[in-house]
Amino acid sequence: MKKIMAYLTKDKYASMFDIVVSCDSGADVIATYTSVEEATIQEVVYGLAFTRHPRDIKNGMIFIGGSKVPEAESILEEVIKVMNTIPEVLRASVVIDPSGAYTTSAAAVVKIMKAVQALNLENPKAVILAGTGPVGMRIGALLSKENIQTRLTSRSLERAKKACEDIKAKYGFEVEAVEASDEEGIRRAIDGCEIAITTGPPGVRLLPKKIWKSSKLKIMVDANAVEPYGIEGIKVNDDLTSRNDGLWIGALGIGNLKIKLHRKLIERAFQEREIFTLEKVYEIVKTL
Amino acid sequence: MKKIMAYLTKDKYASMFDIVVSCDSGADVIATYTSVEEATIQEVVYGLAFTRHPRDIKNGMIFIGGSKVPEAESILEEVIKVMNTIPEVLRASVVIDPSGAYTTSAAAVVKIMKAVQALNLENPKAVILAGTGPVGMRIGALLSKENIQTRLTSRSLERAKKACEDIKAKYGFEVEAVEASDEEGIRRAIDGCEIAITTGPPGVRLLPKKIWKSSKLKIMVDANAVEPYGIEGIKVNDDLTSRNDGLWIGALGIGNLKIKLHRKLIERAFQEREIFTLEKVYEIVKTL
Amino acid sequence: MKKIMAYLTKDKYASMFDIVVSCDSGADVIATYTSVEEATIQEVVYGLAFTRHPRDIKNGMIFIGGSKVPEAESILEEVIKVMNTIPEVLRASVVIDPSGAYTTSAAAVVKIMKAVQALNLENPKAVILAGTGPVGMRIGALLSKENIQTRLTSRSLERAKKACEDIKAKYGFEVEAVEASDEEGIRRAIDGCEIAITTGPPGVRLLPKKIWKSSKLKIMVDANAVEPYGIEGIKVNDDLTSRNDGLWIGALGIGNLKIKLHRKLIERAFQEREIFTLEKVYEIVKTL
Repeated sequence: MKKIMAYLTKDKYASMFDIVVSCDSGADVIATYTSVEEATIQEVVYGLAFTRHPRDIKNGMIFIGGSKVPEAESILEEVIKVMNTIPEVLRASVVIDPSGAYTTSAAAVVKIMKAVQALNLENPKAVILAGTGPVGMRIGALLSKENIQTRLTSRSLERAKKACEDIKAKYGFEVEAVEASDEEGIRRAIDGCEIAITTGPPGVRLLPKKIWKSSKLKIMVDANAVEPYGIEGIKVNDDLTSRNDGLWIGALGIGNLKIKLHRKLIERAFQEREIFTLEKVYEIVKTL
Repeated sequence: MKKIMAYLTKDKYASMFDIVVSCDSGADVIATYTSVEEATIQEVVYGLAFTRHPRDIKNGMIFIGGSKVPEAESILEEVIKVMNTIPEVLRASVVIDPSGAYTTSAAAVVKIMKAVQALNLENPKAVILAGTGPVGMRIGALLSKENIQTRLTSRSLERAKKACEDIKAKYGFEVEAVEASDEEGIRRAIDGCEIAITTGPPGVRLLPKKIWKSSKLKIMVDANAVEPYGIEGIKVNDDLTSRNDGLWIGALGIGNLKIKLHRKLIERAFQEREIFTLEKVYEIVKTL
Repeated sequence: MKKIMAYLTKDKYASMFDIVVSCDSGADVIATYTSVEEATIQEVVYGLAFTRHPRDIKNGMIFIGGSKVPEAESILEEVIKVMNTIPEVLRASVVIDPSGAYTTSAAAVVKIMKAVQALNLENPKAVILAGTGPVGMRIGALLSKENIQTRLTSRSLERAKKACEDIKAKYGFEVEAVEASDEEGIRRAIDGCEIAITTGPPGVRLLPKKIWKSSKLKIMVDANAVEPYGIEGIKVNDDLTSRNDGLWIGALGIGNLKIKLHRKLIERAFQEREIFTLEKVYEIVKTL
């Protein structure tokens, strides 16, 4: 029986990245629903539900992709709403990973926790610089879930607060909002932290050596794969690499695990029917 | 050699329902042509014709889907027009089933004929309540083809007449148009009938017990899968179920056979090159 | 591992012709990017590059199709631009064949060269009537590459000159622009030529018998598959067929080799990573 993925996004195109990973993880046929609207979502959920025997429902799944996380999450809400109108056994799996935000943040945090353990840090504190994007926010949520006291910065305090409120509302975890609009702000933000994560835009340096050299930072993590990287001195391939008495993790160090996780999610989705929430994704990455 | 389906519709999306059933019936690749225009239809027919050896043409097929029957039938007309310009051996199969109207009506009528036989009814009369939709009209055509005198009702006599004229024009069969806009109208419409089919919108009761209990109706058929069902007392899973001295057929009773038929059509389309007209579809459902 | 084709076009639909040929040549999954824009091209190139091990990159490829050659070539330019930003080992193959122009012209010229050899013509001259379209221009380029002195006609001298300048700019080969707007013009254009190729629109006769009978033309080639054909007396199935002391080649004579070539290109693209330029395509058709 063919494994069928319904790919939903409000973008105009399905991500080639997602398509390749899906094919490599078991999908035989990918039906793309781009620029998707509410009415279509019901037809997709029903189409996966009412065409096969309940024991075969797991050979279908929904992947919610695209470049915009809020749009993807509103699709997820609608999917869940429709699924709640049909018997549980007829509900196909749902994976959501717009911009790779779920898998990237889960991969980053599992790497960080390995570093914390390796360095034997007790009650470390973390700061996410330029953390109001989808990856930064989810890293914040997962660190907080791991009981790590976490700050999240933005050049605008208002935006940082908004992000932290969203994290609280969405995931129930507390993250502290901090303004960091200049060198002085960044110094204050990293003060007292052992862990720094930079999730700024590609090619923007957030943490120069002159700032981090006088800090107590041990674990340095950068999500930026385009030079100059977010942290001075980091290499894109750093993967718990020993630097400056600490362990550093570059964008590809995260990225390699992220792809492995992405593949695992699709495989799992075709094995058991479930909705892969951020927390479920994080549980899975810990097993890889 | 891969089995390729060209999926044509004027809708913005291909139906997930159709995609799953197609994959489960042999299609390896589905190329969707949504919001399709006339010019594209020629390219599709030619593309299936001029790329493979005549003996392999049967590994391609056209499926015309979508939510609107008249649009689908205008696509079919164009497909046939283009096919008539190329050698017969190069014409791929064509299945048309917008909104599942062809398969649903064929499945319903074959069930009705089984009930007629089981109950040993002689010259039964049938009424299709709220029958101006695509399923109701095709049930009317097929019942008439089976020599069952059939009425078709609408709240507006004009719409009922229009539907019966369309049936006559399209299929050559006679169905009587009847107005039934209130309880009294429905009583008159079912008077003298042994068979009632309700093809109204989801969740609308057309035939309450107080009306049918004093009638001579024996075979009760409802195409509505959302409660309240079209007929009081029917169950969605009724499948020639004995009730009130008759045999009743609910929406899933029809639906299960409909899916089986849908699958069979796709399988057949990849085995022999033909155009699956309503009457051919009806011949096939009789063999299931 | 599934063989994945990214199909790029600025047209609204992927060509069914291309889809069937691609499936028959090894593609397992075809991801279509229609009405494609620049920003999406980068995502496609990256998606094929950063999801698989370098040794597996060859299981992905880009096909640039559509009806308009300049649009397709601007997509190719963008693809190459993006590919130049990533390591060579991560660049998937690219085949470009809008309107079948690359494969058709390469197939036509290889047929012509066989005829030249069979007839033992020394330093033959060629004329391409109505040659300003994509097929005519590429036939001109390839004949010139084979050191055959070639003229290209249009009803407008200006358009003929523009086409020859484009050939020079794109491929570096010289073709002579000639006006041929009436019988007299055509007589002048074919004067001294042993080879005539007609690449006019379907159903338009360019070379009637009264013109060619008094000429020294030996090799007659017509790309027009709709009657009346471009050359009086030619048959669509002519394939180096002896006529009038020469060898004639009709549209299907070219077309059969063209499809074989099209298939070979897709197969090759999944075996070795390369960009299939017109000249590479021509080298390949010579091996078939």
